[in-house]
Amino acid sequence: MELTVYLAGQIHDDWREKVTQKANEKGLPLQFVAPQTNHDRSDDIGEAILGEQPGKLYRDDAASSINNLRTQVLMQKSDIVIALFGEKYKQWNTAMDASTAITMNKPTIIVRPEELIHPLKELSNKATVTVETIDQALDVLSYIFE
Amino acid sequence: MELTVYLAGQIHDDWREKVTQKANEKGLPLQFVAPQTNHDRSDDIGEAILGEQPGKLYRDDAASSINNLRTQVLMQKSDIVIALFGEKYKQWNTAMDASTAITMNKPTIIVRPEELIHPLKELSNKATVTVETIDQALDVLSYIFE
Amino acid sequence: MELTVYLAGQIHDDWREKVTQKANEKGLPLQFVAPQTNHDRSDDIGEAILGEQPGKLYRDDAASSINNLRTQVLMQKSDIVIALFGEKYKQWNTAMDASTAITMNKPTIIVRPEELIHPLKELSNKATVTVETIDQALDVLSYIFE
Amino acid sequence: MELTVYLAGQIHDDWREKVTQKANEKGLPLQFVAPQTNHDRSDDIGEAILGEQPGKLYRDDAASSINNLRTQVLMQKSDIVIALFGEKYKQWNTAMDASTAITMNKPTIIVRPEELIHPLKELSNKATVTVETIDQALDVLSYIFE
Amino acid sequence: MELTVYLAGQIHDDWREKVTQKANEKGLPLQFVAPQTNHDRSDDIGEAILGEQPGKLYRDDAASSINNLRTQVLMQKSDIVIALFGEKYKQWNTAMDASTAITMNKPTIIVRPEELIHPLKELSNKATVTVETIDQALDVLSYIFE
Amino acid sequence: MELTVYLAGQIHDDWREKVTQKANEKGLPLQFVAPQTNHDRSDDIGEAILGEQPGKLYRDDAASSINNLRTQVLMQKSDIVIALFGEKYKQWNTAMDASTAITMNKPTIIVRPEELIHPLKELSNKATVTVETIDQALDVLSYIFE
Amino acid sequence: MELTVYLAGQIHDDWREKVTQKANEKGLPLQFVAPQTNHDRSDDIGEAILGEQPGKLYRDDAASSINNLRTQVLMQKSDIVIALFGEKYKQWNTAMDASTAITMNKPTIIVRPEELIHPLKELSNKATVTVETIDQALDVLSYIFE
Amino acid sequence: MELTVYLAGQIHDDWREKVTQKANEKGLPLQFVAPQTNHDRSDDIGEAILGEQPGKLYRDDAASSINNLRTQVLMQKSDIVIALFGEKYKQWNTAMDASTAITMNKPTIIVRPEELIHPLKELSNKATVTVETIDQALDVLSYIFE
Repeated sequence: MELTVYLAGQIHDDWREKVTQKANEKGLPLQFVAPQTNHDRSDDIGEAILGEQPGKLYRDDAASSINNLRTQVLMQKSDIVIALFGEKYKQWNTAMDASTAITMNKPTIIVRPEELIHPLKELSNKATVTVETIDQALDVLSYIFE
Repeated sequence: MELTVYLAGQIHDDWREKVTQKANEKGLPLQFVAPQTNHDRSDDIGEAILGEQPGKLYRDDAASSINNLRTQVLMQKSDIVIALFGEKYKQWNTAMDASTAITMNKPTIIVRPEELIHPLKELSNKATVTVETIDQALDVLSYIFE
Repeated sequence: MELTVYLAGQIHDDWREKVTQKANEKGLPLQFVAPQTNHDRSDDIGEAILGEQPGKLYRDDAASSINNLRTQVLMQKSDIVIALFGEKYKQWNTAMDASTAITMNKPTIIVRPEELIHPLKELSNKATVTVETIDQALDVLSYIFE
Repeated sequence: MELTVYLAGQIHDDWREKVTQKANEKGLPLQFVAPQTNHDRSDDIGEAILGEQPGKLYRDDAASSINNLRTQVLMQKSDIVIALFGEKYKQWNTAMDASTAITMNKPTIIVRPEELIHPLKELSNKATVTVETIDQALDVLSYIFE
Repeated sequence: MELTVYLAGQIHDDWREKVTQKANEKGLPLQFVAPQTNHDRSDDIGEAILGEQPGKLYRDDAASSINNLRTQVLMQKSDIVIALFGEKYKQWNTAMDASTAITMNKPTIIVRPEELIHPLKELSNKATVTVETIDQALDVLSYIFE
Repeated sequence: MELTVYLAGQIHDDWREKVTQKANEKGLPLQFVAPQTNHDRSDDIGEAILGEQPGKLYRDDAASSINNLRTQVLMQKSDIVIALFGEKYKQWNTAMDASTAITMNKPTIIVRPEELIHPLKELSNKATVTVETIDQALDVLSYIFE
Repeated sequence: MELTVYLAGQIHDDWREKVTQKANEKGLPLQFVAPQTNHDRSDDIGEAILGEQPGKLYRDDAASSINNLRTQVLMQKSDIVIALFGEKYKQWNTAMDASTAITMNKPTIIVRPEELIHPLKELSNKATVTVETIDQALDVLSYIFE
Repeated sequence: MELTVYLAGQIHDDWREKVTQKANEKGLPLQFVAPQTNHDRSDDIGEAILGEQPGKLYRDDAASSINNLRTQVLMQKSDIVIALFGEKYKQWNTAMDASTAITMNKPTIIVRPEELIHPLKELSNKATVTVETIDQALDVLSYIFE
């Protein structure tokens, strides 16, 4: 039984590569999918496809519609969602993806540092599992196959 | 036809009172519901009901389960959700409530200042309507009854 | 048992008033709701609330988000949808509202003139009932209460 | 991960072949499905299977039930729906298929020429993404696999 | 708490009046709804509204679309469905209504005489409760309010 | 794209073998599933597994629970349901299976002889397609792959 | 806004009366519903309505179908479910009702004594809130209206 | 057609191995999944991944969130659920898993000894099939493939 895991969260470091590598090392039958992780590409995609827009609002709206399509397609194909929160940026997309997954009854793991316990408390409480590190998230995934 | 509107968002000023007052002035047949807006009460409610918890994580988890029950009950009774974003705080609960509402097919209005266009772009794109001010949100509600 | 009926369709004549008046004459316990029937208001509503937009595309997108919120709210409150097609205009909103209602399992009556049998054949086949005139649609509504 | 894409829209030129060919050139792992694209066959299929019907209404109703079954089967198997609008014909089936897909939470791309911005504004606003050309639609599909 | 009960089943005697009268005698807060119980009216309703049809198949199809709309509206408003089977006629509408209700998760009571145990065994097994008489069905309804 | 088809209906002749053979001759990528077609086995299965029951009612209830499990498993795996009605027996299971499939939004084909038009009119109207013969049903299936 | 609360759990003392009385004292706009709390009546209801059954298994199955109908009707009408566990009896119905409510997305409060923390840990984790006493459950209900 | 079967129930003997072995002997195309069957591992998993917790309640809550994720993932992938009850322990997880499966419309087989007929009567009545032994459950599974 191979499972597909959507990796929601910040796109400013290579945490998804670490997750994938560690899953491979453990031999877990997992396929990982994710949002666009090239930040500039993610911001530019609207104008890259639809042409120049008349201002930031419209440029952002164009990009977001295409990012949302990608996320909707890949999350619907996923069996599990991992949402990683970090200490920088607004991370509202991470909160949005986690909430969407929970409302769709997708089993959802939140990864968040200790500093974020308080502002994330309601979302953590709704998630299936909350952990602090990527290694713990992988331990949870690994446990499914024991 | 009376409609029920859930007012998600920050609880640090009296914006909900303004919404309610303006809706009354317009004579709109609306009933407003909301999360606990007393911030200390919201943070304390876990220990207030369940007793002292062994640390911040557990105190927060206890409070959030009760806040989540309140939100789940009231959002399920609502016909429309308004989610207001401001410039301070993480506001992940606002993102969570808006995403939950959208995924439940609740008509959802996001209110956000111009400064937040970029970080909220994917969520705004998924919402039914995005506006910048409370007055605009009320104009949208009023339009339903024209 | 009072029922709520959403009246989808063109907004270029007073057919909704006729439906309402005839239902009253028959003493049917029906409440009617509808999209914005003032065509200029419907087209202007985006800029009226959100301010001037940078071009027709953006003006139309702003208006449509607010029209869609109104339709979503009122259709979710409705027990039955009537969708009237006429001989002028594209009427894609009528097709959209009828299809949305059918997919939501709302009992749906299509009213269409004989000339439109062929282009509407697949949609008519999916609707619960297809009739040619408003009087026939009212006869169907009346039959529920016999 | 192979995805299945339903191509809704007019059946009067070979746009689907172009989409398929371009997807192959890009090496995208996509399977395309579609309604019956032979227009005569689509109109005749009711009488071809069920025998002669007593008039146009009945001939059309017979054909449409079989076309609807085909669409229902193939759309339920699809991960994404592309709906292309052109400048000729009523195209109510295209609006119907797009609305059905959106209501079923299928990620949906509308392709429409600039001339149709206004009459399609509400449907475009509900779709996940709206573009103007087939090449842009393919760019959106391609973006999922970046 | 008032409950609405849909009474599916044969329309060849006055069993629904008996149910209503007995419920009134017991003082149960129940509202009863039902299909058209005038058999001729039920068969004629298609042509009565839509005009003469070119043969029995088309006459029956026209009538059935209007009967189906009535049933869909009233069953969606109901909290409980009672389906009564008797010894005459095909009663496929009764089986259809009971199966529809069960699949919609409506609590469903089947009333059937002893002679029909065998041919109804799978449907009875899927229903919430199976009884043999109207009085027993009323006892079940009455039990909800004890 | 291989599709799975559930064949509901009477189990007194070999119509399912004919369907399978004809589908093979046409080279259609279809997998067929069905209820238990050995009538004695179907009636005996409750006591065969659970032991002797204290009377016909209990014997039938035991058998039907196991038949219902089989049908529920196989229908949930199916993309299309064909329900064949014949001239003998009550055939309430056929009506039950067809209604269940329609309510689950499974594309459904009813096969019924001309004599049964009237008693099946409401169910036929709700089905996606109604035909008179197995060959016509196969033509409908074949049309999906044109 | 009046809310309806289903009180699942043991029926061996008068805890429901206490809940109702305390809610009244607090002036909470709540309506309470519950399973049959007369234990003998609950066990006898099958034979009381359907007549003597051939053994305990059949007697219990008859009673349970009627108890299940009552629970299904009342739980579907409820906005919140409270499930109280005590120290005696198997209490599988309490676990069943709580799990059913959680899976239906009903906000669910579990009341359980400290001794039952371990055997109820998975169910408590899935519930919206877990408390130890009736007074705490009422505090949670009361918090919705603050 | 291979089916996946979730085996819910006590983890104190090797009944799952027996089920698997017997299914293999019968040549049934079944894949079995299950909760963690190492009891200590199941109780320890929270602290094993998340670190020491401040007391039994928190230790149990941490473990249960991870056990619940595993069950949610595997049950959503399953076509059938078997829930085995024995004579020892509270077995509330078994009742929870069975109720969850039934509410999700998963075909569900309950295996319970004769002694448990009475306390399990409502849950048995809601399950698709109830049997007394593992061999009978396998006979039911085998019947699907006859």
